[in-house]
Formats: sequence, structure tokens, C-alpha cells
Amino acid sequence: MKTHYVPQPPTPRNPGDDAPPGSAPPVPVAQSADDPPATATQGQEAEMLLERTRALVDPRLRAAVESLPGSIRRVAMYHFGWQEADGSPSSGPAGKAIRPALVLAAARALGGDQEQAVRAAVAVELAHNFTLLHDDVIDEDRTRRHRPTAWAVFGIPDAVIAGDAMLALAQRLLAEDSSPAGARASARLSTCVIELCAGQQADCAFEDRGPDEVTLDECLTMATAKTGALLGCACALGALYAGAGERAVGAMDGFGREAGLAFQLIDDLIGIWGDPARTGKPVGADLVAHKKSLPVVAALTSGTPAAAELATLYRGSMNTPGEVSRAADAVDRAGGRDWAQIAAADRMARAVHHLSRAVPDLARAGDLLTLAEFVTRRTH
Amino acid sequence: MKTHYVPQPPTPRNPGDDAPPGSAPPVPVAQSADDPPATATQGQEAEMLLERTRALVDPRLRAAVESLPGSIRRVAMYHFGWQEADGSPSSGPAGKAIRPALVLAAARALGGDQEQAVRAAVAVELAHNFTLLHDDVIDEDRTRRHRPTAWAVFGIPDAVIAGDAMLALAQRLLAEDSSPAGARASARLSTCVIELCAGQQADCAFEDRGPDEVTLDECLTMATAKTGALLGCACALGALYAGAGERAVGAMDGFGREAGLAFQLIDDLIGIWGDPARTGKPVGADLVAHKKSLPVVAALTSGTPAAAELATLYRGSMNTPGEVSRAADAVDRAGGRDWAQIAAADRMARAVHHLSRAVPDLARAGDLLTLAEFVTRRTH
Repeated sequence: MKTHYVPQPPTPRNPGDDAPPGSAPPVPVAQSADDPPATATQGQEAEMLLERTRALVDPRLRAAVESLPGSIRRVAMYHFGWQEADGSPSSGPAGKAIRPALVLAAARALGGDQEQAVRAAVAVELAHNFTLLHDDVIDEDRTRRHRPTAWAVFGIPDAVIAGDAMLALAQRLLAEDSSPAGARASARLSTCVIELCAGQQADCAFEDRGPDEVTLDECLTMATAKTGALLGCACALGALYAGAGERAVGAMDGFGREAGLAFQLIDDLIGIWGDPARTGKPVGADLVAHKKSLPVVAALTSGTPAAAELATLYRGSMNTPGEVSRAADAVDRAGGRDWAQIAAADRMARAVHHLSRAVPDLARAGDLLTLAEFVTRRTH
Repeated sequence: MKTHYVPQPPTPRNPGDDAPPGSAPPVPVAQSADDPPATATQGQEAEMLLERTRALVDPRLRAAVESLPGSIRRVAMYHFGWQEADGSPSSGPAGKAIRPALVLAAARALGGDQEQAVRAAVAVELAHNFTLLHDDVIDEDRTRRHRPTAWAVFGIPDAVIAGDAMLALAQRLLAEDSSPAGARASARLSTCVIELCAGQQADCAFEDRGPDEVTLDECLTMATAKTGALLGCACALGALYAGAGERAVGAMDGFGREAGLAFQLIDDLIGIWGDPARTGKPVGADLVAHKKSLPVVAALTSGTPAAAELATLYRGSMNTPGEVSRAADAVDRAGGRDWAQIAAADRMARAVHHLSRAVPDLARAGDLLTLAEFVTRRTH
């Protein structure tokens, strides 16, 4: 048995990556000499898990989307990368299917039948894509998965409507399931969607506030709502479809939430120090966008001289490479980078703790740990 | 017993109204000498029904809305007219509560306990308000219930997010109900929301098409989806909460749908010939907006000389009182006004036929008929 459950510190950069704008070397604080390095095999295992998930979930997801009325279906098929804007077939890059994979892995870990849980996996993926459609409108993002976003192609009305219909479709799938899990899953998903909305709303509101007006607690609550909630819900729905009791369902939710927060912390580090060749985004993309991400807010609220320097940069336009590089360096010197790496490792440890309450024999939860490690180890 | 169930022709204008832009007198085609005139008493009865509904539903609706996260709650409370934009209390005009009233009346007609059905009434009203929030964004409408719309006050992101959360809240209310009706109601509401989305999408798409490119069938399908579906769903949910079988539930849905279409036809007539003093909108508001409403499309597709005249006006800017008056007159001469009045009466007859399948003793369905008459007789 592999020691999957040993909390691993995140490694947001590969040693071979190009030098990021910040000048400091990779921070080893959270790295223990006892931790085995992430192996290619672990990554491959996760990729295989995701591929198996897509093979199981995609046909059902596609059938659900194809049941939508024609005009809405067209926008949805484009969004999922199954069609071009003109309706011709496309094999564009769909999502990684991490959330559906979590649903199925959680169901398996608790002895459930994954065939039963596919319905929940489809519902969660639909709910996730509802948020993507609306978030792209709200954030005015024009690119997703290397293609123009749905609203950029079809206009804001069609994108908003397609998102609405996708949420209703997710709910319908669960409501139509007469098994005892259906109604409980539906209620949990609805509660989760409300939390997702609160997270997205907070994220927008942060943009209108000054660089020293957002607390780290607010930022953590926002990230938990925006990212952790749906990963938690995915795991909880898997547990529900395995017939688990409230305690195990709640623990599974906790696992997904904490893993989701670890994922967000790594994502935020990549948003600053990610390799443009791998992320497909410009150097320091989140800094250019003045995003109040977790490492940035940790730095801004550190009370250090570097915090004041960063706040000054955040009040300006910050669009030259020199300014972006200085901001990244300031986040680092203010301790934001260290903090985020340690916090990510801490969240993964909490995630594993929750998981051990849901699945006392962690050997049975190998796939869940593989997925959690995968999302927190990725470099792009 | 009153002869509630005799199909009544709509009377979109009161005799005492100011003269509308069209020159023709009220069309008496569908009026039979046997029909009793609408009495003030009937209107008062409907108002009392609506008031009783609000007294039952509002506290639960408000409690549900108050359970939303703070930032979203603020937008929702403003939208419902319970708060001003700054959060201070307001007793602004809320909606009429026609949909909740239909839920409760349908439950009563089938011998159900209306206390049980209040949950469904709240869910339907939340779903209705989700559509209002999003439709106002999509249609760029700046005024609703005589106040600035939510997006005009809080911005598009907050209004979209509040709508999303309201839909999820509606779903949660039904999913959390462990009674057998809960899951069935939840599935029906989700299916209805998808249809509402299709209706709104079609409505938007019509705007981009030429005046002779929309068929009457397409227009009827759109109106059924956009207006009929939710009124049908309201009645169906009432039936479900009364423990009715699929057949009665389906018949109740048919009643609401047909009554909804009658309502839309009357609404469209008011959009052309409504009295500005009563509607709060300018003379011929729908014509100024180039709206392809049902009487307009009936006129445009009539093959008459007046149709060609109307099409020419629709291709222009149509913003002078003279042009608006000529367009209203063309709709009338092309038969659009007569058609809409007859169609509304026909839809009401179909509605009553459906109702008699759900409630063979129509005497028990008096409240439903009162409500249907109320919405198709209103003049503003």
C-alpha cells in the first residue's frame, strides 16, 4: 500500500520551470525530509482516474445537455467544447472532470456503487459549469480553456440563460432520482450553490476595495465558498450515493472543502509565479489584474515594510514587467508565498483528518487522496 | 354558486378609460350576450384571495430570503421591495402573489391542506423572482414595480448572482421537504425553469429577426414557455401538495398554462392599447420597443395590406406619437386585435376544460377561476 495519506506540501513549481518573476528560491519551509517526492506515477494514476471518470460520466453528461431546448443546447455544447460556435462538431478541450471524479471516488471509498453515483457526478459537473458560464459574464473574462467564452461568442443574454438552464438541469437530475439519496443530494447541492453565489459575490466586492481593506479571514471565507464548497459537495454527494450517514457525509464534505482550499492556495501561487509557457497566461497574471488572492492578502496584512510597498503597487496601474516583478517580490518578502505554501500543506493535513473520520481505513480512500494530491501538485 | 366557469371574453379596457391610440371601439366578437359582465365583486374577491395569500406566504418567503448570505440578501430584499437600496426598511410594492395564490387555490380545490402547500407557493414565487432579476438584466429594463431594477442599483454581477441564489433557494425549499410531494415538485419546478429559459431565449432571439420572420406558432410557443409554464407549474405543485395523481397534476398544469397564455394575450393588448395613466408606461409602449408580441405577429402574418404597412413601420424607428398611433391602427386593421381577444377567450375555455378534468365538481375550483378571470380581466 502506498503512503497516500501522508500530507504532502504543495510543489507549485517544477524544478525545470523558467525563472518566475519573484527572485526567491522555492520555499522549503513545509517540506519535510521524510516526505517522498511526488512521482510521475502518482500523476499518471490521477490522469488515469480522470480519464476513467470522463469515460463514465461524459456520455451521461452529454445526454443531459442534449436534452436542453435547441437554442440553449447550442450554447451549452459550445461551452463544453463539443461543438464550434456554428454547431459543427468539435473535440475541444473539455474540463478535467475533477469534481465528478471526486463524487465517484467518494462513493467507492464508502463501498457505494459508482454506477448509481454517476447521476450525482453529472449534476455536480453541470453545477460547476453553471458557475463558469455566469462567472465569465460577471468577471468579463473572454477566454476559457483556450477558446472565447460563451458570452463572448453568443452574447451576455444567451450565456446567462444557458447557465440558468444548466443549474436547473443539475437539480432536475437529482430530483428525478427516487432513491433516498436523490432528495438529500438535491438539498445539499442547492445549499452549496447558494454558498458559491456568496463566494462569487465576495470576490467581486473585493475588487472595489482598497489593498488594505480586505482581511485574510474574509479572503479565506471567500475562497472556501467559491472553491471549497463545490469540492466538498462533490465528495458529500458521493457519500450520500453510497448510503452513508450524516456523520460520514459531513466528514467527506470537510475533506473536499479543505482539499479545495489547498487547491485554491496553489492556484493563487501559480497566478503569481506560474510559468506562462504552462499556464497559458502572462507572467504574474493575477498581479496585473490586481487580484486580491490569498498570498497577496496574506502579504498585504503582514504589517511588514514589504506590505506597504505592495499596497502602493496595488494602488497603481502595475502593468510594466518591472512593476509586476517587484510586486511578486514584495509578496514573497512580506511572507505571502511562505504562508500560502504552509497553509496549503495545513489544509491538506486537515483534509486527510476529515477523510479518516469518513473512511477509517484510509487504504480504501486511495483514489480520493490521489485526486487531492493531483490538484494541489499541479503546476499549471 | 356563481357561474365562475363560463369562459369570459377579456375586457382589456374599461369603458371609462382614456381613448387609446388605436381608433377602433372595443371588439365585441368574443362577447356573448349570455355572459354576465365582470362585476366589481369578482375583482374584490380576487383581491381578497391575493391578500390572504400574501398574509400566508409573505412571512415564509421573507424568512427564506433572510436566510441568504448577507450581501445577496441585500439585493433580494431590495428586489422584493422590503428594503431600500441602503438597507433601510421599505414597504414598496411587492408583487401581486398571483402564482402563490394559484398554488394554494389548486391545493384547496383538490382537498389539500394549504398549510402544507405554502412551501411550494414560496418556492414558485422565488423562481418567478429569479426570472425577473435575470430578465431585467437581459432586457436591460431599468424600471420594475415603479422602482429602479436591481441591476440598475447594484450592478449586473450582483443582480445575476442574486437571481442564481434565489433559484437555488427555491430548489432547496422543495428538496428539504421529506414529504412525497417534495421530490416530485422539485423535478417539476426544474423542468419548468428550463422551459422558462427557452422562452426568454426565444423572446430575445425574436428581437434580432425582421418583422416578417417570426411565425405565430413560434410566438405562441415562446409565450407558452415564458408565461404559461410557470402558471401551469404553480397549479401543478398545488395539486402535488394535495396528493393528487399524475393525471390531475397534468390537468392542473394545463389549466395554468392556458390561463397563462390568455393572460399574456391580454397583457400584449394592454402593451398596445393600455391607458398610460393605469399602466405607468407610455402610450403603445410595446410598439415603441418594436416588441413582436402576439397581436403584432398575428397582424404581421395576416397577409393583409395593413400587415405590410405595419412591417414598414416596424423596420423604422417608430418613435413619434403619429407613427405609434398608425402602428396600433395597423395591428387593429390587420385583425391582430380581434385575433388576440378571441384567442384569449379560447385559451380561457381550454383552461376551464383542463380544470374540469382535474376537479370534476367545478364548484370546488371557484378560487382558481376567480384568479384566472382576475388576471385576464385586468386593465393594467
